Amino acid sequence: MRAYQLDRFESLDGLVLRDREMPQPGPGEAVVRIHARSLNYRDLLIMHRRYPVPGTAGVVPVSDGAGEVVAVGEGVTRVAVGDRVAATYFPRWRDGRFAVEMAAEQFGCTRDGMLAEFAVADQEALVTIPAHLSYEEASTLPCAGVMAWSALTGLRPVLPSETVLTIGSGGVALFALQFATLFGARVIAVTSSESKAELLKRHGASVVVNSSRSPDWERAVRDATDGRGVDHVVETGGLDTLPRSLASCGADAHLALVAALGAGTLDAPALGAPATIRRLYVGSRASFEAMNRAIAHHTLRPVIGSVFPFDEAKDAYTHFAAKQHVGKVVIGT
Amino acid sequence: MRAYQLDRFESLDGLVLRDREMPQPGPGEAVVRIHARSLNYRDLLIMHRRYPVPGTAGVVPVSDGAGEVVAVGEGVTRVAVGDRVAATYFPRWRDGRFAVEMAAEQFGCTRDGMLAEFAVADQEALVTIPAHLSYEEASTLPCAGVMAWSALTGLRPVLPSETVLTIGSGGVALFALQFATLFGARVIAVTSSESKAELLKRHGASVVVNSSRSPDWERAVRDATDGRGVDHVVETGGLDTLPRSLASCGADAHLALVAALGAGTLDAPALGAPATIRRLYVGSRASFEAMNRAIAHHTLRPVIGSVFPFDEAKDAYTHFAAKQHVGKVVIGT
Repeated sequence: MRAYQLDRFESLDGLVLRDREMPQPGPGEAVVRIHARSLNYRDLLIMHRRYPVPGTAGVVPVSDGAGEVVAVGEGVTRVAVGDRVAATYFPRWRDGRFAVEMAAEQFGCTRDGMLAEFAVADQEALVTIPAHLSYEEASTLPCAGVMAWSALTGLRPVLPSETVLTIGSGGVALFALQFATLFGARVIAVTSSESKAELLKRHGASVVVNSSRSPDWERAVRDATDGRGVDHVVETGGLDTLPRSLASCGADAHLALVAALGAGTLDAPALGAPATIRRLYVGSRASFEAMNRAIAHHTLRPVIGSVFPFDEAKDAYTHFAAKQHVGKVVIGT
Repeated sequence: MRAYQLDRFESLDGLVLRDREMPQPGPGEAVVRIHARSLNYRDLLIMHRRYPVPGTAGVVPVSDGAGEVVAVGEGVTRVAVGDRVAATYFPRWRDGRFAVEMAAEQFGCTRDGMLAEFAVADQEALVTIPAHLSYEEASTLPCAGVMAWSALTGLRPVLPSETVLTIGSGGVALFALQFATLFGARVIAVTSSESKAELLKRHGASVVVNSSRSPDWERAVRDATDGRGVDHVVETGGLDTLPRSLASCGADAHLALVAALGAGTLDAPALGAPATIRRLYVGSRASFEAMNRAIAHHTLRPVIGSVFPFDEAKDAYTHFAAKQHVGKVVIGT
């Protein structure tokens, strides 16, 4: 089969297309023909050796993909040949709390990921994808979708009486916007561009604040909540936006920190905000399955920005790294 | 009656002893003869105009006190003359989530507090104190006690399988240590002095880390948990210790931020810790009552460092501000 692999970790040059052995399912494992993959920021971090977990030399990159089961090993009962599936971000995290040892095993990092024609996974690491989704749409779910779902269903799930703040128009932010409307919540979206404002409104944002026009956008957010501040923040901007996000928080707000990145810092006044800051680690298989039930019930469709052919995967990386896209960047067949 | 009041807010000179009208209970109110008060850091902040809620000129200071009901107004059913009571930190917060409007009303800040011979309070703001406690002991509970209780009973209460990290030997830290042992948890206490280490061990700390001898004390904390890190932190050191506290955290740890004070800052690597940071706002009346049930069941006794007579209240402030005390500083009769 054909597979991309990361022979070196400095740049895109380290990503090479190879012919590899067709994977065989061991006991409890399934082989999946991957029809589509989506890129996440973590894939760039791994490529550039800036991810907390170092990638294994020669690994097939990309955590997120969707496909159909084509072979199963001994004792497999959870999936069958022909099933439409995706793999979980952390193959060992089924339910409950995250544990450090779960982080060590990740597709596209320490074990072969989805940027290949076939992938092998333990049956416990696979979930059935919603029937109404194409493979391309389903390939966007494992990281960005589950991250957004976890952000909204954490220590205190979102209510129809509450306001959710989203930052930007990246994959997690768009999922957070779409999901928050399923919870019946009101969404205030911050963006730096007028063209993206339209998209955010189309996907359910009640209020869009343009941070280019309002550099101190936390004021506009507070104004839009009659001064109370928001109840939830899905912080996809890292430290660059975190101080203003905290200043947007109402009493006992919950802020989900998607990534601890960026050049900003927090001082005592910023931490004086009446908010709980929770670090996210994508989510468990149970969260993935719960999200899929919500997506199926509402026939929700992920927002795809562009689809690249498998042979042009490097162009997909370049397009994604330029950060001008809106919606998920997908690599198809 | 005699009462101290804050005529000015620059320094201790603004605190003056006056003769004032004996308070009368309005409908739903009770008058309490205050037998003891305890000082908290917030009392210094209010005195020096550094508290988020500005004090009212002429207000009787001090949030925490205990005494007996001597008169009740029309319609009072929650307490009766002779009851031994203390007032809640936020008179309007009975249960559930904190709301911004609750912060505006505080004893010893925007309404008359406990540094007087008598105080008046709405019956809803009073709780019965545990029978085995003296008034002096009970006077330590409303702020420091409830704060520590809230830290351990938040979004995920402490379990006997878990490790709790406490910082220093202030009022909240000592309560957190004592309470954590009631939950069956293991406590690691950080202190800068060998003499305080003995006290911390006596009150139940399994491990005491001396930060003078180990400036990078988070390593010692991690070593003491076989590298896993702690499950809970009661962060009483503010930004000065927060980066090291976060570095002490294990997967999905919960850190309760008692005060957003101090000169330190948090950057992206610090916020990369796998922890949820929760700002504390003392706690509700329901939390106070739950804590009292635990204290009564275990006949737990608060740690009192020194007791000053009412006439020497200014000396109590000076002693407290010098930060050399261990255990609560109490002002008696």
